[in-house]
Amino acid sequence: MTKLRALAPSLLLASTLLAAPAFAQRTAPAAAVVDPAIAKLRDAALTDDVAYDIVEGLTTEIGPRPDGSPAEERARQWAVAKLKALGFKNVRIEPYALQNVWVRGAETAEILSPYPQPLRLTALGNSGATPPEGLTLPVAYFASFNDLLLAPAGSLTGKIAFVSNAMQPTQDGSSYGSQGAARFVGPNIAATKGAAAIVIRSIGTDHGRGPHAGNTNFAPGVTPIPAAALSVADAENLERMVKLGKPVTLHLTLTPTVAPTRLSGNVVAEVPGTDPAAGTILIGGHLDSWDLGTGAIDDASGVAITTAAAKRLMDAGKHRRTIRVVWFGDEETGGFGGIAYAKAHAGEVHALAAESDFGADRVWRFETNLPETAKSLADRLAVALAPIGIVRGSGVGGDGTDVGPMLRTGVPAIDLNQSGLRYFDWHHTPEDTLDRIDPEQLRQNVAAWTTMLALVADAPETMGPVTPKK
Amino acid sequence: MTKLRALAPSLLLASTLLAAPAFAQRTAPAAAVVDPAIAKLRDAALTDDVAYDIVEGLTTEIGPRPDGSPAEERARQWAVAKLKALGFKNVRIEPYALQNVWVRGAETAEILSPYPQPLRLTALGNSGATPPEGLTLPVAYFASFNDLLLAPAGSLTGKIAFVSNAMQPTQDGSSYGSQGAARFVGPNIAATKGAAAIVIRSIGTDHGRGPHAGNTNFAPGVTPIPAAALSVADAENLERMVKLGKPVTLHLTLTPTVAPTRLSGNVVAEVPGTDPAAGTILIGGHLDSWDLGTGAIDDASGVAITTAAAKRLMDAGKHRRTIRVVWFGDEETGGFGGIAYAKAHAGEVHALAAESDFGADRVWRFETNLPETAKSLADRLAVALAPIGIVRGSGVGGDGTDVGPMLRTGVPAIDLNQSGLRYFDWHHTPEDTLDRIDPEQLRQNVAAWTTMLALVADAPETMGPVTPKK
Repeated sequence: MTKLRALAPSLLLASTLLAAPAFAQRTAPAAAVVDPAIAKLRDAALTDDVAYDIVEGLTTEIGPRPDGSPAEERARQWAVAKLKALGFKNVRIEPYALQNVWVRGAETAEILSPYPQPLRLTALGNSGATPPEGLTLPVAYFASFNDLLLAPAGSLTGKIAFVSNAMQPTQDGSSYGSQGAARFVGPNIAATKGAAAIVIRSIGTDHGRGPHAGNTNFAPGVTPIPAAALSVADAENLERMVKLGKPVTLHLTLTPTVAPTRLSGNVVAEVPGTDPAAGTILIGGHLDSWDLGTGAIDDASGVAITTAAAKRLMDAGKHRRTIRVVWFGDEETGGFGGIAYAKAHAGEVHALAAESDFGADRVWRFETNLPETAKSLADRLAVALAPIGIVRGSGVGGDGTDVGPMLRTGVPAIDLNQSGLRYFDWHHTPEDTLDRIDPEQLRQNVAAWTTMLALVADAPETMGPVTPKK
Repeated sequence: MTKLRALAPSLLLASTLLAAPAFAQRTAPAAAVVDPAIAKLRDAALTDDVAYDIVEGLTTEIGPRPDGSPAEERARQWAVAKLKALGFKNVRIEPYALQNVWVRGAETAEILSPYPQPLRLTALGNSGATPPEGLTLPVAYFASFNDLLLAPAGSLTGKIAFVSNAMQPTQDGSSYGSQGAARFVGPNIAATKGAAAIVIRSIGTDHGRGPHAGNTNFAPGVTPIPAAALSVADAENLERMVKLGKPVTLHLTLTPTVAPTRLSGNVVAEVPGTDPAAGTILIGGHLDSWDLGTGAIDDASGVAITTAAAKRLMDAGKHRRTIRVVWFGDEETGGFGGIAYAKAHAGEVHALAAESDFGADRVWRFETNLPETAKSLADRLAVALAPIGIVRGSGVGGDGTDVGPMLRTGVPAIDLNQSGLRYFDWHHTPEDTLDRIDPEQLRQNVAAWTTMLALVADAPETMGPVTPKK
């Protein structure tokens, strides 16, 4: 909407400001005004069907999309066809190779004593393997990750560590960072203390039987041990048993393997802008998913939201900046899609980068790392997003695995943060399926992204480079 | 509480009636009065911990308890120890044999075309087996059980029938009867129309990935076909594929077997009464469970609620009638526990029979088939239960698989109906675990049963025999 630049700001008093109470002035300064045409675009996006259609298509016609799998290859072809059908330009696959791809094998576990019961679990990415017949060993219980850290060196020899570290939901998802350590590095720590294997309580906020998959990482020189996540209900049951005071013996079988080189790729599509020198706006989500669910909230919704918003900009007319939508090929196993993108597009001018990878519940907050010279843009964004329930956060934006490699080169960022209160109920579980998507909240996401793109695509400000967020 | 019988009814005006509006008179007649001591017992039960302790113990120390399994045998021993520890008399196992026990095997399924995806399902009890390598066949889709009934004879030859019959929650659980037909008799009907196998949408009200197990039955002379329930999410996904219009091919592997004779047994415990001629009050639930969950709501809660209530009567003093608590050994695969009980106790005078087998959410209604001569007892029950939110239903009581064989001999019944609005979210699934039990609602159940037992144990009325409910 190049016409926006021709309008004098003084004519564009946003109606939402007229009755704003004093305390709101901090987030929506009276000086910031927004073209009513943007409000119209925003509100029209609240009836969007494109995003839901993409999530439904990916979950129904593809399903699970593990990295480097035939399903991921089918997903790329599906993406190309869909993006072309939606009218995007320069639609293509940018292929790259994945090395040493971890592949799930058999995964079973049973308590042998004192109370025989089967357990539901899933191996963590990069887990080592047990012998085919499994391991039978006593359990060493740790109520928290902290307790595991305190275990003396060598104290876990001949044992299966069980870390029952619980996670509570947080709106900003920060508990994933703090409590997720049990998964991210717990297996490595257990290995260094001599453990033969480790099972953790799933990093999740539910109480169900579906275990939460996810990667773990072993430090160089540490031999990976078998590592798995129990469903939260199973971890709670095992914890009750441990607390009854009798020694607990587990039989654990995990037989993952490592495949040699496999093909992956990013799917790229564009809405060409009128001013190539103004830089490209990079947005997207990731096309790959864990294998237990169908990858609806992680992250079909992310590619769907960003694509639906970009299409709305495309259909609304010409804009200054090119919008590039990327369906990144690998996020879950190491962010190799984002790394490949940054390598392929090094040296290109990027005006902004933003990703959607936190489900499809309502966006409640935005944060940026825009410089002082683009302060007015952030102010206009605050005014334009307030009517759909989005507040300006007091922190600094610039998160995301897929766009991370670009952000680290100094590209500025705007984060549109979804509510994380339900996300970790289903994250990486069999339950990540289409029915977890609330169509009304999904539409609010599309409206938020449409609003942001409409402002940024035609902003007169120069936005970067910036100092990357640590 | 034998003292109750010495009090004149006119002295026992229930305070709850004083301000009762006119419309309430139908369910709580002013003439019905209840001993305040019963209200005290009822209200004390709202702090019960015995029931939760039993559910926690059975799910933690035993877990899944399939009929005729070693786990069920361990559960009987656990039950005997627990009932003795609680102070019950005449605690014993009444063993009986189970014939032709269906045993789960491997169970996997994948869509091969047009959109390859794995499916989550579970074989139905009495399902036939596929070859070990599975069946690969086209799907014949039926949106409802009714549509399956309308399929022409022979039209399913060489096909896997897929019945996507949806179930909505009902407070009284009646949708299980109406929509459950797809499981109860759908496989038999599909077999008679030539189907090679059948998959149904789970009979459940959730949208999750945990399939709902359960029995199906084939008519004499009909060879069982492989029959399985897809999780609701998987059925919804498969249905979306079907509606895209391309032929769908499924690969289905089910390898159940049938075991010869296995041992089961009912666990019986008593609170002896002072007047053997007044007849025994038979209450209980079932100890067995399906194998996917740990049998918390189906039916550890049933044995827990009835046992906790009986213990409260025991601890309150002597009563006229003997209360017999039975943890029935087999309900899920044919109600053989109830049949064995009726055979073992034929000829004994039973004053009343009642079971709890519908989870642990709040009791919202009671219904009886008491005769006109015991009308006053039902009126007293209405008065005593109203303060904990229980209304008198307009129907006739007398349901239950476990006590059914006794009811059919003319024993009167009182049904305390739990709300079914959540029950079929988890019924027969992996999700039937301890965390589904709401301790506060469980206590309300104990209070309802304590109240009912207190009234019936010392009631001066003769209650039966009655004409059994059809």
